[in-house]
Amino acid sequence: MRIFNVKTIIVGGSATGMGVAARLKRNDPNATIVVYQEKSYVSLGACGLPYFVAGNFSDPNNLIARSITAFEENGIIIVPNTQVFKIDFENKLVYFDNKTDSYDNLVIATGATPYIPPLVGVELKNVYTLTTLEDGIELKKAMQNPNIKNVAVIGAGFIGLEMSETLSELNKNVHLFELEERISPNAFDPEFSQFIKENLEKNKINVHLSTKVTEIKGTDQVQAVVLADNSLIEVDAVVLALGFRPNTEILRNTKLALAENGAIIIDETGHTNIDHVYSGGDAATSSNYITGELIYSPLATVASKIARVIADNIANKPAKFVGSIRSAVVRVFDLGYARTGLGEFEAKKQGYQIRTVLIKDKDQTNYVNGQTDLYLKIIMDIKSRQILGAQMSGAVKAMQRINTLAALIWSKVPVDEALEQIDLIYAPPFARTTDILHIALAKLNK
Amino acid sequence: MRIFNVKTIIVGGSATGMGVAARLKRNDPNATIVVYQEKSYVSLGACGLPYFVAGNFSDPNNLIARSITAFEENGIIIVPNTQVFKIDFENKLVYFDNKTDSYDNLVIATGATPYIPPLVGVELKNVYTLTTLEDGIELKKAMQNPNIKNVAVIGAGFIGLEMSETLSELNKNVHLFELEERISPNAFDPEFSQFIKENLEKNKINVHLSTKVTEIKGTDQVQAVVLADNSLIEVDAVVLALGFRPNTEILRNTKLALAENGAIIIDETGHTNIDHVYSGGDAATSSNYITGELIYSPLATVASKIARVIADNIANKPAKFVGSIRSAVVRVFDLGYARTGLGEFEAKKQGYQIRTVLIKDKDQTNYVNGQTDLYLKIIMDIKSRQILGAQMSGAVKAMQRINTLAALIWSKVPVDEALEQIDLIYAPPFARTTDILHIALAKLNK
Repeated sequence: MRIFNVKTIIVGGSATGMGVAARLKRNDPNATIVVYQEKSYVSLGACGLPYFVAGNFSDPNNLIARSITAFEENGIIIVPNTQVFKIDFENKLVYFDNKTDSYDNLVIATGATPYIPPLVGVELKNVYTLTTLEDGIELKKAMQNPNIKNVAVIGAGFIGLEMSETLSELNKNVHLFELEERISPNAFDPEFSQFIKENLEKNKINVHLSTKVTEIKGTDQVQAVVLADNSLIEVDAVVLALGFRPNTEILRNTKLALAENGAIIIDETGHTNIDHVYSGGDAATSSNYITGELIYSPLATVASKIARVIADNIANKPAKFVGSIRSAVVRVFDLGYARTGLGEFEAKKQGYQIRTVLIKDKDQTNYVNGQTDLYLKIIMDIKSRQILGAQMSGAVKAMQRINTLAALIWSKVPVDEALEQIDLIYAPPFARTTDILHIALAKLNK
Repeated sequence: MRIFNVKTIIVGGSATGMGVAARLKRNDPNATIVVYQEKSYVSLGACGLPYFVAGNFSDPNNLIARSITAFEENGIIIVPNTQVFKIDFENKLVYFDNKTDSYDNLVIATGATPYIPPLVGVELKNVYTLTTLEDGIELKKAMQNPNIKNVAVIGAGFIGLEMSETLSELNKNVHLFELEERISPNAFDPEFSQFIKENLEKNKINVHLSTKVTEIKGTDQVQAVVLADNSLIEVDAVVLALGFRPNTEILRNTKLALAENGAIIIDETGHTNIDHVYSGGDAATSSNYITGELIYSPLATVASKIARVIADNIANKPAKFVGSIRSAVVRVFDLGYARTGLGEFEAKKQGYQIRTVLIKDKDQTNYVNGQTDLYLKIIMDIKSRQILGAQMSGAVKAMQRINTLAALIWSKVPVDEALEQIDLIYAPPFARTTDILHIALAKLNK
């Protein structure tokens, strides 16, 4: 299908924006596509920043999935270093510098920025966040300084965990602060929060739970963080990892519908409440595949899928995003922690009557080198007998198992005798004859 | 549920037999269970033998999953070193030594033995098979002899592959002979046979395809193998890996129904055609989950599942084995090869109209150490759009992905827009945002 003389403006050149651009151009080689991008680069794989800081590689350009030149060779117009500061939905105009540009279709893919808490001292030198290439380069350079010995990481979500590992590998003494009483409470159930805590502590991270940082002390440079009980912990730098806020400031007080946190509300086609205006990725809501609920889940995997959906719909190829089950994984030192679907608390809140199992087993036979411990939790809806969620921890090599559970959640099959007998691969270096998944399913099916 | 005064005799003390024994005792602590076992041990994990020979561990008892003593402490009677040589189904008697024993229920779990071809020279010293603990100990000892430099492995199925690797790690010069024109033709499609061949050759294994060994030459010791074209290849030892034959000689010319290859025909409850007589594992048939066909698939994973089914049925807890999709994996040096479901040829033979994709991609991001190549083939039924089979190769750490496909086959979900969007885990050390599975599903769904 081809669209003639249709111009699509994309605001934002990260995963969602460039994903839409690339697929739309494939869908319709004649489409006019203009991307306005704040940065000098597009397609940053921001998930790789902690690994860049940790020194896994030295050229930050490795994080650029595809260059501006490559997109331009493909006929996509990119306007870098340019911030769109206003959108006139009525007249279909975007405003930047002292100019405007007009669109037939608009894709708002402005992403999200790290939440900066309103703390005294948050503006001090050596207070970092990690979202842009510049952030990564600056933090990496700063951490080369041997005088920076003690670093506070505020927030124990996935990025806080990755940063704790990264800084520890750079020989920093890390203090990890979390306001909640456990690690990554939005991703994991308490058992797994506890496993992660133990792993962090084994690796000499100072974990401070139920701890509120109320001030960052220092004159010019950071000297300490102040806690709610007025105690001080001396640190030389602070990394903020308190989650993300959608970049939608310019859309406040417009007719565009926003969720409570500022995310642009989209339907399953990626469409907003305004005709010809689409959004997706970290700037927008998404939906929960299981419950249908509108959620905010700024994950790269969601962004890449919604980008396809938007591009197809703009090209008149009807497409729907069916939702996310928030499948995610994080590596903390030598172990992985993965989750998919609903957590126990979430499932109960949704009104499900649930049965859960938590199994400890091994990933492979004992007689081939490399056997490691696995933990697997599964949450089942008693009524439908469908799996609602699962969480796992173990060696990196064992983590793909969670995708088997994601597939079962996705397929909505009941836990029954047939599922208990699911035929999984076995050979001594890979698994045991009866996998941890079999043990868990058999226990659920009792 | 309890059964009173019911005696179950189990012939054979490997995976199936001991699996039935253990679960039956759990089902009914008062059950009388007697196991007749040819060997001095039970519960051998024979899959581990190549790793024992390779020197991954030195104590062969590591391969014994559970000792006779442990079973006996549990109230299971084990009669080791005893061969049942006749069964009288009419009078419900088993014959051994010069005695008989009578049963209410009988489980024939005699397993299988390696096929020994009728070759001149097959009785020579230094001609080995690898199924029993004694085989393993003998072969390992023999291979310590530095005068054994060149070894022939006959048969390029999974055990032939594992043995080629094992012998190569013991610094032997290995010649691998396969009658068919490609590696593991019953497990893999030609593309993957070729990948394995390239890997073997990269690792200095001499691969001889479409090659029939017609004689083993030697006086006392092996000196060479003779090929169909009368050429000679000098070897100092031979390992036979030509597949398995069910151990059912004593059942020929009885009323027990056997398949063409001698496997005991069982139904989905593990029951044979004779009342109160069950069988399973390597001695018996099983069924294909997709096609319902009776198959012979001597895999440990099938044995352990059918054992549960038999034990439950004997204990009056109705249970059914729903079939196998022949999920299997083999490691060859540093790479894994996995398969599940129907192969392309098999699917066509079954009359399916199929679409296939073969994708090459990477297992994780490029900027974290350890990125490796993956190949994934999926076979889809065009009519139902269900996945019929999949094959994969890649690093050991990437292989669990095949279980995601096994789960999709098991769930019988169609390949559609929703499945294309299956939510899989992503983080830089584990995957790419768009996994090879997404790429394959999108291509299938075009």
